[in-house]
Amino acid sequence: MQVEFLNPFLNATTSVFRTMLACELSRGQPALKRNHSPEHEVSGLIGLTGKCQGMVVVGLGRETAIKATEILLNERPDGLDRQVIDAVGELANMIAGAAKAQLEQFDLRVGLPSVICGKHHSINFPSNSTPILLPFESPIGSVCIEVGIADTVPGVRL
Amino acid sequence: MQVEFLNPFLNATTSVFRTMLACELSRGQPALKRNHSPEHEVSGLIGLTGKCQGMVVVGLGRETAIKATEILLNERPDGLDRQVIDAVGELANMIAGAAKAQLEQFDLRVGLPSVICGKHHSINFPSNSTPILLPFESPIGSVCIEVGIADTVPGVRL
Repeated sequence: MQVEFLNPFLNATTSVFRTMLACELSRGQPALKRNHSPEHEVSGLIGLTGKCQGMVVVGLGRETAIKATEILLNERPDGLDRQVIDAVGELANMIAGAAKAQLEQFDLRVGLPSVICGKHHSINFPSNSTPILLPFESPIGSVCIEVGIADTVPGVRL
Repeated sequence: MQVEFLNPFLNATTSVFRTMLACELSRGQPALKRNHSPEHEVSGLIGLTGKCQGMVVVGLGRETAIKATEILLNERPDGLDRQVIDAVGELANMIAGAAKAQLEQFDLRVGLPSVICGKHHSINFPSNSTPILLPFESPIGSVCIEVGIADTVPGVRL
């Protein structure tokens, strides 16, 4: 079980939204992702490596992604443009970075974010991992964090 | 420019398809991804960290992903099921691993793959990276590798 990842990612997400977007998140019930997760049109993905391997996903609706970008830039983007891509990638990067700082025992490094756009896309992790799902509500819409982690170092319990 | 990543990823992709799927790829023209890349219904993503940060994407059509899984398992999946997800994630993992072995100078580590399914999804990298696009044709359909890399260590030229 990946329970040691729960609080670092919960804290990282609320802290990044509060600091960067002046946006208070309210936490839903964390869950193990077995089947479907809430569907969002925009997903920011970023890889983690170290004493474990992982992938972090930040899922946002189209309007939530645009509003988050508007708050960051103080200017409303026309749609899902380059500014929104960069803003969502940077949110994923900051959340992964803030969680990494609380997970020193795993000696994590953070990869390059990528941002998926598309209605009805699903994000799936390999069968040998059990991703955790952290749902949040906010004044700018719902936000969902998914964290998939696989053990790579014998002796590190996950 | 990320030209030093070109040959390792070209070689890794053709080698993994030849070894694992007995499938000969013919190379198209590598390109810098500026706007759109070929649209595929299935994308395997995996993060890279080390002396640079990166993300590798393996894009396949639905039927190509199913055929690749059929070759790997010697049994045809019914559709885009768990077996296909695992097979595409494993292809991404093997390609990233094979390229990493040829890029020792970057001391790369490979993250956990994730697999995106969805018609008309697009994969976007941050503006401060210039992903390379490696298109291939094969007897089971077209395959596309995208590699986004960002420099993280001063003095390492990219």
